[in-house]
Amino acid sequence: MVIIGGGFGGLQCAKALRGEAVDVTIVDRQNYHLFTPLLYQVASCLLNPSEVTAPLRKVFRGAPNIRYRQGEVTDVDFSRREVRLADGETLAYDTVVIASGSTTNYYGNDAIADRALGLKDLGEALQLRNHVLECLELAAATKDAAERRRLLTFCIVGGGPTGVEFAGALAELVRLVLPHEYPEFPPSEVRIVMLEGGDRVLPTFKKRLSKYARRELEHRGVDVRTDTLVASADANGVVTREGTELATATIVWTAGVRPSVVPHHPGVTRTEEKRFAVDDHLRILGAEHAYGIGDVSAAPDHHGRPLPMLSPPAMQAGRYVAKQILRGPTRKFRYFDKGTMATIGRRAGVAQIGPIQITGFLGWVAWLVVHLYYLIGFENRLRVMLRWSWYYLRLDRPVRAIVQAHPSKNEWGG
Amino acid sequence: MVIIGGGFGGLQCAKALRGEAVDVTIVDRQNYHLFTPLLYQVASCLLNPSEVTAPLRKVFRGAPNIRYRQGEVTDVDFSRREVRLADGETLAYDTVVIASGSTTNYYGNDAIADRALGLKDLGEALQLRNHVLECLELAAATKDAAERRRLLTFCIVGGGPTGVEFAGALAELVRLVLPHEYPEFPPSEVRIVMLEGGDRVLPTFKKRLSKYARRELEHRGVDVRTDTLVASADANGVVTREGTELATATIVWTAGVRPSVVPHHPGVTRTEEKRFAVDDHLRILGAEHAYGIGDVSAAPDHHGRPLPMLSPPAMQAGRYVAKQILRGPTRKFRYFDKGTMATIGRRAGVAQIGPIQITGFLGWVAWLVVHLYYLIGFENRLRVMLRWSWYYLRLDRPVRAIVQAHPSKNEWGG
Repeated sequence: MVIIGGGFGGLQCAKALRGEAVDVTIVDRQNYHLFTPLLYQVASCLLNPSEVTAPLRKVFRGAPNIRYRQGEVTDVDFSRREVRLADGETLAYDTVVIASGSTTNYYGNDAIADRALGLKDLGEALQLRNHVLECLELAAATKDAAERRRLLTFCIVGGGPTGVEFAGALAELVRLVLPHEYPEFPPSEVRIVMLEGGDRVLPTFKKRLSKYARRELEHRGVDVRTDTLVASADANGVVTREGTELATATIVWTAGVRPSVVPHHPGVTRTEEKRFAVDDHLRILGAEHAYGIGDVSAAPDHHGRPLPMLSPPAMQAGRYVAKQILRGPTRKFRYFDKGTMATIGRRAGVAQIGPIQITGFLGWVAWLVVHLYYLIGFENRLRVMLRWSWYYLRLDRPVRAIVQAHPSKNEWGG
Repeated sequence: MVIIGGGFGGLQCAKALRGEAVDVTIVDRQNYHLFTPLLYQVASCLLNPSEVTAPLRKVFRGAPNIRYRQGEVTDVDFSRREVRLADGETLAYDTVVIASGSTTNYYGNDAIADRALGLKDLGEALQLRNHVLECLELAAATKDAAERRRLLTFCIVGGGPTGVEFAGALAELVRLVLPHEYPEFPPSEVRIVMLEGGDRVLPTFKKRLSKYARRELEHRGVDVRTDTLVASADANGVVTREGTELATATIVWTAGVRPSVVPHHPGVTRTEEKRFAVDDHLRILGAEHAYGIGDVSAAPDHHGRPLPMLSPPAMQAGRYVAKQILRGPTRKFRYFDKGTMATIGRRAGVAQIGPIQITGFLGWVAWLVVHLYYLIGFENRLRVMLRWSWYYLRLDRPVRAIVQAHPSKNEWGG
């Protein structure tokens, strides 16, 4: 069988099949599993890429039935049961699990896509980190006061968990580093503006938690503007739907993702969000021997609404599908919601576990424990813990070199 | 005053001027100091970029007389006493210290420059790391046996310390990781070939140490070929001057560096190697109020030969020039050679300290202690030590994600 994607869904599926009498090939463009919940910490100079990634081959060391194949999937031929790769090869399968996740969605707005920075994959996180640090250097070097203000205005579009966490982390970076290291301008010149289209931040959380998050962000100097939709972007900054212009050199787009699906096949049903429609066993409707899990499929929750594009449903679906493959059809897939959490910064988090709502220091600790627990690989867990302790004591953001690998010299690309 | 370059020379010079009654601006294209002696460990998947870099602003935290300016120096106007930057700005100076170091030198051979990978700056080290990992993935995916052999042949040109250290580290990466994680081909298919133009590796070391290094490399499976000059490179690999072809996808070029100097000025004397000629106080001949230190200047040793392009002479010159600036001309610059060392791999190093020659485990320990001691910044020192202990115990190479920051969206570039 073939699993497309080494994200949360694909990884859990492959792990559950480890050592079983199934030959598994896991295909991914990237040679690593990415722990996306901590990506914003790469973008805000706290963590190294190696601390939020686990090389897929390393994860499946000592599991001879699990193979990794680096490759970009261009299509799946459901009738011939073949996965097609960009390098021209095909992988035959008896069963395919499509778990290819999602990417930043600019909703077809090219002006925004050209100017904005995403925060969904590692390349984007490093691009954003370099960009923020470059803006600080450019602001330190310029003699033009208006240009400096523009360079020091950081606009975050979207008030979901990614936007809130990055805004909080950026505010801390500014507060911890700038007063000591940038004598060229006062830290007060930095503006972090969050633009959210809905009426509150963290819209999927309870209202009380949204309120707390907003207060904490504002307490950290973030200018939170709800009911504000972005219409366009140009060289000078962003324009809201009401026509307000905001001069900024940085537009961080966390306002949407779209499923990374293969081209349309007649008969294979998609939802409005372009996710695969699946039956209650996560089988893709209109295809055979094909499962769709995680962000690419619209598995329904117990109200019949599609599950959110988050890691917990993907992980549970991955384990569920592994069971289906090993034991044949069993009970229907049912997502068990263990709760959600987000952190605004040091000692400030929100967690919502069933009817329980936690804020503040306890929320932050809950967030910390859960994220450390789920970090793949013991080395990472230990090292990230050490780094966090260190950062807690030293109030520093260590990963601040503006680094770009020179372009690949392999024809394959990187 | 202006210091051009935040490498070993510029950094030591600025550090020696910290807190003194001198206004110092340190200009560098990169926002970090790079600990180049460990760069090969970034390229061989052991260290993260943040472990071999120190952000320059962080180094000079709490030193109000030292400023950092990110910028690329295009020229120095010695008569108007101005440093010109690529962004159009100029920096006026009373004294300038040129410490801009060196870059990979392909000696004008475009075919080699197009195909080869350098190992002199961080962008190159990351490019090389990604490239090696990509070659392994491509080799695992291909069905063409000849192509697989080509992808698994790694050619290192140059048998100096950088070449020897990278070859040893690459051999360890292959031995530690491949047998467990690449079932697609036997590790014995990997070939590491070192091509050295002279008659021995580590030519600047005593003959006994060269012999030891060669034996240790060969013991680790490196095919060492001395008296072998590379003539050209093409899509298939390298061609030696004798006409031997070696099919390889990887040419690591460690066979030369050239000083990063500003354009020629009439009257300003250069040596054959294009280094600034300096007097015995390190003042650039033909210019005034200008010092040249480190790789860019040909300060003579006590035999009258130009000092080698290594970090110790640069560091000593940096401190010396700081003294000249603070106290006026004192004694002539004299380089004190504390010795040189290199490591071939775990538990195998060579060190040459005056008449003393050390090899083996002791040489490795000497290398380890000195390199940890000189690592900039306590956090790095502690973390690198932890990482090394960890790797010593676990026999792992953790930094194996193929990572490329998406291209910069700042007009300034990255």
